[in-house]
Amino acid sequence: MQDAFWSEIVGTAMLLLLGAGVVANVILPRTKGNGGGWLLINFGWGLAVFAGVYVSFKSGAHLNPAVTLGLLTADQDFATMKDTAGAVTGVIDPTVANAFWYILAQMIGAFLGATIAFLAYKKHFDEDADPGIKLAVFSTGPELRSYAWNFVTEVIATFVLVFVILCFGPNPSGLGPLAVAMLVVGIGASLGGPTGYAINPARDLGPRIAHAVLPIRGKGSSDWSYAWVPVLGPIVGGVLAGLLANVYVF
Amino acid sequence: MQDAFWSEIVGTAMLLLLGAGVVANVILPRTKGNGGGWLLINFGWGLAVFAGVYVSFKSGAHLNPAVTLGLLTADQDFATMKDTAGAVTGVIDPTVANAFWYILAQMIGAFLGATIAFLAYKKHFDEDADPGIKLAVFSTGPELRSYAWNFVTEVIATFVLVFVILCFGPNPSGLGPLAVAMLVVGIGASLGGPTGYAINPARDLGPRIAHAVLPIRGKGSSDWSYAWVPVLGPIVGGVLAGLLANVYVF
Amino acid sequence: MQDAFWSEIVGTAMLLLLGAGVVANVILPRTKGNGGGWLLINFGWGLAVFAGVYVSFKSGAHLNPAVTLGLLTADQDFATMKDTAGAVTGVIDPTVANAFWYILAQMIGAFLGATIAFLAYKKHFDEDADPGIKLAVFSTGPELRSYAWNFVTEVIATFVLVFVILCFGPNPSGLGPLAVAMLVVGIGASLGGPTGYAINPARDLGPRIAHAVLPIRGKGSSDWSYAWVPVLGPIVGGVLAGLLANVYVF
Amino acid sequence: MQDAFWSEIVGTAMLLLLGAGVVANVILPRTKGNGGGWLLINFGWGLAVFAGVYVSFKSGAHLNPAVTLGLLTADQDFATMKDTAGAVTGVIDPTVANAFWYILAQMIGAFLGATIAFLAYKKHFDEDADPGIKLAVFSTGPELRSYAWNFVTEVIATFVLVFVILCFGPNPSGLGPLAVAMLVVGIGASLGGPTGYAINPARDLGPRIAHAVLPIRGKGSSDWSYAWVPVLGPIVGGVLAGLLANVYVF
Repeated sequence: MQDAFWSEIVGTAMLLLLGAGVVANVILPRTKGNGGGWLLINFGWGLAVFAGVYVSFKSGAHLNPAVTLGLLTADQDFATMKDTAGAVTGVIDPTVANAFWYILAQMIGAFLGATIAFLAYKKHFDEDADPGIKLAVFSTGPELRSYAWNFVTEVIATFVLVFVILCFGPNPSGLGPLAVAMLVVGIGASLGGPTGYAINPARDLGPRIAHAVLPIRGKGSSDWSYAWVPVLGPIVGGVLAGLLANVYVF
Repeated sequence: MQDAFWSEIVGTAMLLLLGAGVVANVILPRTKGNGGGWLLINFGWGLAVFAGVYVSFKSGAHLNPAVTLGLLTADQDFATMKDTAGAVTGVIDPTVANAFWYILAQMIGAFLGATIAFLAYKKHFDEDADPGIKLAVFSTGPELRSYAWNFVTEVIATFVLVFVILCFGPNPSGLGPLAVAMLVVGIGASLGGPTGYAINPARDLGPRIAHAVLPIRGKGSSDWSYAWVPVLGPIVGGVLAGLLANVYVF
Repeated sequence: MQDAFWSEIVGTAMLLLLGAGVVANVILPRTKGNGGGWLLINFGWGLAVFAGVYVSFKSGAHLNPAVTLGLLTADQDFATMKDTAGAVTGVIDPTVANAFWYILAQMIGAFLGATIAFLAYKKHFDEDADPGIKLAVFSTGPELRSYAWNFVTEVIATFVLVFVILCFGPNPSGLGPLAVAMLVVGIGASLGGPTGYAINPARDLGPRIAHAVLPIRGKGSSDWSYAWVPVLGPIVGGVLAGLLANVYVF
Repeated sequence: MQDAFWSEIVGTAMLLLLGAGVVANVILPRTKGNGGGWLLINFGWGLAVFAGVYVSFKSGAHLNPAVTLGLLTADQDFATMKDTAGAVTGVIDPTVANAFWYILAQMIGAFLGATIAFLAYKKHFDEDADPGIKLAVFSTGPELRSYAWNFVTEVIATFVLVFVILCFGPNPSGLGPLAVAMLVVGIGASLGGPTGYAINPARDLGPRIAHAVLPIRGKGSSDWSYAWVPVLGPIVGGVLAGLLANVYVF
């Protein structure tokens, strides 16, 4: 479990480094990708998952409490350990205690990754920009604020993420980490329009804490009144996916 | 067959949730992807197929009456059932009765998926927008209305879809669901320009019914006069592909 | 060989249907993809190759005289025939006679594919547009006309295409037809800027003949003075790739 | 080792031909891809790696001194040699001497590739353009000049590249060269905003030398004051990745 704890930290840090990074590239002033568009953001986040999964191979690469809770609900192993020859040497059981450590690691990793992304774009954060722009590099916010409907959107989008992941087993392919990466590109393209697709409580809350504590020039509010939506929405979506998978997949 | 019926419902609902979703993201007011361009729509729809195929593994993931009728015409099994070890345990035969249930499930799934996409973008549907924009989230319409030539375009594009799918067998790869996803990206990029590439009667008709019955603010006509084109065109294209495959592939 | 002849016709027709299609979508008036940008064109052509390779499985899917001549130069089999169980049942030898039939089939297929693309976009060809726009759907033309340098660009780009393809053998993967598709996306992105990357004599000459004979409203010159560049350039590039591969790869 | 030396030259030349090519296409005057955007550049560079890896199969396709030094630090074999049946016939050991030859070959290859890209875009280099634009085809430069922070960004981005590559081993898939290609697309999208992601000393220094010696019309300074950043930053990032991998991966 200690290996898995570190693995989730490293993987989620990688996810947020690249994920916060692509948002910074598209919306912060005077970057090379400024104004690069939604598809660039979608590929950036999808390939952030891609890289995160590669480096998180010791824990099954959840990188997301909604995935962890979905697997817990569906009673599926959190991870399968293999030796260097590829033989299975053990599993991480889907217990509440293990879920706690996974989620804690994801929160730590997300905080760290967003912080490193801040360093990579430090000079651009030092430029003048709307405080909302600077927050948006870290955490999601809705285009049309409506807690109820924003919540619904996050539930739906996260349900898609976790339910499709739970269907990966019966659909073997050679795609490896590219499968979930392309899934995330697709969810962003299709369901990211209203809320910016947190679909991951750690992805949103960890960086929001980072935004609150980091010395960001000209930063404004961390928008805590919205913070529960991208936490509770994905949790509900992930659990619903686990429940449906119990009936439909397994 | 009951499993396959549910599987086509779930898969086609996923297809339309993400497919209608990406259109909503690009054309509805005040979304994050507004004005995101044609390639974003193409990847959105391609990856909608990607996700739909993953969740529809119990039925061979047709998700499209044109595919079902193409397989029926070519006398190819609708699906191969496998146990969890991957051994084949049975097939679904290409019969007219089975095709009926597949197509019914696809219609139900498409209706449901478009409805969930409507919920995900509810606040954006509540904004002021041209009624044609709101319809376009659900169903296709031509840029230059000409029933005959629009029909021709849908026949050609659907022929490509079904004929290439029928050639997947002799071209084994590790791409899994990504193969058909990329094919759909390509068809959209190349042949979607005139009519918006329905290439699937269920994809167009199911959501059009949803448009007609849902309480969408400021909605206009469901454009029933055009509705036969994206139904009959894809059917003809799929059957032609099956006929040619009988000579060329099998 | 008869199977292979038909296979090259079908595959090259598919290539041009989707390839000419994406150009039509991006540059003809009042299409949904109008102004969609260079990356859309790159993905359209790449996935045109993707689809063309799938349907051309009986001939090794050359789809391009430069590939055929590159294989001939490198003395590599044109195709390997397999039965439905995947066992090798024969090869098509790299002879001049076989190359002749391959290239003839590619020319016929390219003519047919461009013609079907014309039908798919018929209403958009009927709109008013610059004659150069209408020609560009069929055949390539340089942004800065300089026969010598345009020729150099086509030699370089085609060399990349054929030389990388000749290196596919030592680099096994599960990508199947996606490998060459992504290669073509990359060549278009990187080397398509000056001349529009014909990189295939059949892709350019077959559709140019179609442009000359089809009843296209308001069409202008077929620009025959440039036509030799996208024919000779790719031939030289393909042969050079075969020569270098003889030393470097095989 | 002689084979590997040539292999690194050929592979890095291919990388720079396509990589410098896509930048030329997007920023030089009167190209077809002019103004094509950041995602086009990201895919161009990612697929430049894709093609470079294919042609560099005799040396493990480092194409980058940061990768070579990362492997040296992690004490991982530089390459595994296989016969045509796929059986392992030998390895290239991670020694300082071998690293020297790899890096020399990468520098030569990068110089050659950028020179060929110059030839492919010769007519566009002959057009009037800002000297900074012409340099940017060859080498990277920051949007906001700050040697310290630009260095940090290059360290972070290269760390991601090399660390994820070092995690490829425990994550087998059928992606082949597409894995590293998509990784590079993602790093460009996410971390390329401040400095243009050299993440490779050879990619930046070799072409900068080419810029200095080639007869480019209206060229300006080769900006040697910045040249150490994209050399030292990637070296530090690669070595750090190797050090962490020693603890975390192997």
